[in-house]
Amino acid sequence: MLSTTERTRLNRAKHKARTDRADLYDVLDHGLLCHLAVVVDGTPLALPTCHARIGDTLYLHGSTGARSLRQGSEVCVTVTVPDGLVLARSAVHHSFNHRSAMVLGTPRVVEDGDERLDALRAIVDHLVPGRWDQVRAPSKQDLAKTRVLALPLDEASVKVRTGGPNDEPEDALLPVWAGELPLTLTVGEPRQDPARQVDVPLPEHVARLAGRTW
Amino acid sequence: MLSTTERTRLNRAKHKARTDRADLYDVLDHGLLCHLAVVVDGTPLALPTCHARIGDTLYLHGSTGARSLRQGSEVCVTVTVPDGLVLARSAVHHSFNHRSAMVLGTPRVVEDGDERLDALRAIVDHLVPGRWDQVRAPSKQDLAKTRVLALPLDEASVKVRTGGPNDEPEDALLPVWAGELPLTLTVGEPRQDPARQVDVPLPEHVARLAGRTW
Repeated sequence: MLSTTERTRLNRAKHKARTDRADLYDVLDHGLLCHLAVVVDGTPLALPTCHARIGDTLYLHGSTGARSLRQGSEVCVTVTVPDGLVLARSAVHHSFNHRSAMVLGTPRVVEDGDERLDALRAIVDHLVPGRWDQVRAPSKQDLAKTRVLALPLDEASVKVRTGGPNDEPEDALLPVWAGELPLTLTVGEPRQDPARQVDVPLPEHVARLAGRTW
Repeated sequence: MLSTTERTRLNRAKHKARTDRADLYDVLDHGLLCHLAVVVDGTPLALPTCHARIGDTLYLHGSTGARSLRQGSEVCVTVTVPDGLVLARSAVHHSFNHRSAMVLGTPRVVEDGDERLDALRAIVDHLVPGRWDQVRAPSKQDLAKTRVLALPLDEASVKVRTGGPNDEPEDALLPVWAGELPLTLTVGEPRQDPARQVDVPLPEHVARLAGRTW
């Protein structure tokens, strides 16, 4: 179960809240990218980045030079999976079917070498399952430029909207088509690096992603 | 042109920066949803929401009860369009092809009735072009519950990553398949509201979205 705190309680649309930890895992694992909210020099920023979950820890990574990845400041990581456009009979009831998760907390900079590698592996394999074992592992130089952050899944909220529109009862008989346009993120045909110096046959771990939908 | 400020200058990956206003418009108009970064009770939050652009103003809307839409506080609105997974020869050079725009500023609460309606129309038509004219317009009661915010496109940055991986020269001959897996957001078959009380034929403005990709 996710414990609701003052900060993660939904003030509106409470019926969209989910409190099962499995729902949190589902959104975090399903969403390809996240947005990191962080205050930099007094300004709130929402920065797109990649993430991965191992157990009850969410990992992020970035350059050691990134001002957004400094230690000790509170962040919010939001993963949003768009599932559909909701077409209502009245303008204001148009909506977005989606799953979203917000994780709040102060990330820890990961120093342990094994945990750093595990986190980077999880991030690469989150994007392309099975990829890590096929590529060159990070060198000491690679690792020196990379910061890894760990955020415990202690304080989080999950919101899920599904189904058709929630129109006003008095609009039910309007002659307006209402319903949902489903949305999926779809992987197209693999494009081999045009700058390649050697030809490598398409491996199975890449081929199986073509046509995959999220 | 977008003038670069201290806050919108890219500190790393400067080659990904775009300074044409047309690139900013492209990302804002193309992205179906955005993330609003705002500090609420001292905590930075990234909240998924919908937006639309009219000229050089970005509009957001929400419930008058939303703590995140209070007047007078600085925000960041980020729109991220994922375009592809970049598969490199080494782990750390895996990346995301994407277009993203960040708009910084302090939004104005829109009070003028005409501007409020124009903004709401733009937000509905941003999701489903041509929809506004087919549905019931907002009533006084609808409008009383809705807050509209306007953010001028005065301070913004745009980042675009395209193409294949940027591997280290010494990895060029590794026998690793490298390239891109393109990603598109795809609209599926329309699903009519199962709770409908009247049958309405699928209108052209909905039918033409089926199969559309972003």
